[in-house]
Amino acid sequence: MIVVLTGGTGGAKFVDGLRRVIPAEELTIIVNTGDDHVWWGLYISPDIDSIVYVLSDLLSSERGWGVRGDTFHCLQAMKELGEEAWFSVGDRDLATHLLRTQMLSQGQTLSSATFHIANKLGLRSRILPMSDMRVETRIDTPAGDLSFEEYFVKRWYQDPVNAVHFRGSSDAEPAPGVMDAIASAQAVLVAPSNPVTSIGPILGVPGIREALHTTRSKVVAVSPIIGNAAVTGPAANLMTAQGLPVSIAGVAKAYEDFLDILIADDSDAAAAQLLSSDRLQVQCTNILMRNSEDKARIARAALTSACPEIITESAGIQ
Amino acid sequence: MIVVLTGGTGGAKFVDGLRRVIPAEELTIIVNTGDDHVWWGLYISPDIDSIVYVLSDLLSSERGWGVRGDTFHCLQAMKELGEEAWFSVGDRDLATHLLRTQMLSQGQTLSSATFHIANKLGLRSRILPMSDMRVETRIDTPAGDLSFEEYFVKRWYQDPVNAVHFRGSSDAEPAPGVMDAIASAQAVLVAPSNPVTSIGPILGVPGIREALHTTRSKVVAVSPIIGNAAVTGPAANLMTAQGLPVSIAGVAKAYEDFLDILIADDSDAAAAQLLSSDRLQVQCTNILMRNSEDKARIARAALTSACPEIITESAGIQ
Repeated sequence: MIVVLTGGTGGAKFVDGLRRVIPAEELTIIVNTGDDHVWWGLYISPDIDSIVYVLSDLLSSERGWGVRGDTFHCLQAMKELGEEAWFSVGDRDLATHLLRTQMLSQGQTLSSATFHIANKLGLRSRILPMSDMRVETRIDTPAGDLSFEEYFVKRWYQDPVNAVHFRGSSDAEPAPGVMDAIASAQAVLVAPSNPVTSIGPILGVPGIREALHTTRSKVVAVSPIIGNAAVTGPAANLMTAQGLPVSIAGVAKAYEDFLDILIADDSDAAAAQLLSSDRLQVQCTNILMRNSEDKARIARAALTSACPEIITESAGIQ
Repeated sequence: MIVVLTGGTGGAKFVDGLRRVIPAEELTIIVNTGDDHVWWGLYISPDIDSIVYVLSDLLSSERGWGVRGDTFHCLQAMKELGEEAWFSVGDRDLATHLLRTQMLSQGQTLSSATFHIANKLGLRSRILPMSDMRVETRIDTPAGDLSFEEYFVKRWYQDPVNAVHFRGSSDAEPAPGVMDAIASAQAVLVAPSNPVTSIGPILGVPGIREALHTTRSKVVAVSPIIGNAAVTGPAANLMTAQGLPVSIAGVAKAYEDFLDILIADDSDAAAAQLLSSDRLQVQCTNILMRNSEDKARIARAALTSACPEIITESAGIQ
């Protein structure tokens, strides 16, 4: 079983690559829920949805979120009713949120709701929220303490960032299956997601960081940073706010207590050489994911670096 | 102020006529909420929505419910997620239900939610739910005790009806404004709605029947029955189950303690003559509402029979 830690659009792209190179049932995906938020009374879990949609071939690759070809008629009507409309929810996408919200309000866990939805869509991978308890990523800015979606979507991540907090984190527990999955994984892959707000909340759930440290499998991360910039999104500002250099060294530092292999871009070869040590191996390849072939190639690179026999075993299956 | 009691598609058509002949701000519409039901976790109030939509010119006249030109993409996605999909909710329509549900879950009343939505759509009429308390129309059939929507929409009103109950009715109170509106009305109009399941639940709220009896204004009903059949829908079966003859006499009986004038179809002229008495005046006209002109004509007939000066006052306004 391959375990992936993921969040954000980079994470969804990486999982899109993985599903092309190993059988879906061999994937356990542990997903950030720090971006979850309540919108129009619905419980929205953007990172879980992106993984569900990418695995069911529903994800809009143009937008990187939501359902391909979706319409936004409800959103438009909400706008006309005077409601906030800065968070775009498509009409098909709404079904996922409605069903999840209904299950949660009936006392079911986020894990069960996620399993139910994935199952109905015919998915064979396991998708695990990092926790069934509420953890909220909060961005402390001069404009106030913002939820991640306010910072990222509503305000286009233009605010300077003082600090990042994971509200509820210290009391959270890993969702059922998370600890076992890490402990018994053949390989643990950290997606090229934002280390602070996509992977950070997962690592903040008590027990998960330790489990990554003690697992006997290799832990491999694909860098979301090339040179001194994030491939996409606000990672650079957020890393700076957390005292991490914006470079592959910063990524390595964010994961220093458990990372075995870091996959960096070819253009970072010099930095990679400096960073490599007895404890950390840094491998370089072209890490930009512009199309399906790129995604599959990078997924394969991460897998083979962790555990070369996997690809051979699965070869020809997909 | 003109007060209208209404429910169902016949009621929405009648209100569509009224808005064409008197200024919107002179209308207070008291709406059946016995059909309200929770669907996908959303609180849906079909009769209130029809009135809101008809007054805002959003109602689909083809369907007689929901928003004109609406799409059903969320419904389709719900179906694909294995959820029940027999109750059609359009994508734009969803916004209304989401907003109402959110307001109710925040502790607001159905009256407030209705006012807010109507206000945002620029409506100048007052739309009052019959009660802010939950009253559920239940249809007792050989197949079991069904909600109105199960009986009507899911099962196409094919079940024999043993009895009709209004669950919660005896403990319900009229919503704020309902009693005052009836007491101070210039005229009270009962729409050509199903007397059992559209008007019946309103009359079942303690106090409303008495208010209709004691108001000094005329109470005028337009018959939903022509000959021995309902113009549309299941009224005939439901009237029979309630011991009412399926005829204008049955309509008169349903409203006997407060009705002053009944407007019946020309084809019921003979029955009308028999039914007329010192207490009840029966007027005949063509009561089929096939187009806007029909609706306006019937609205005008009901208004002038109750209070001839109204139309003169408002003439030329719309």
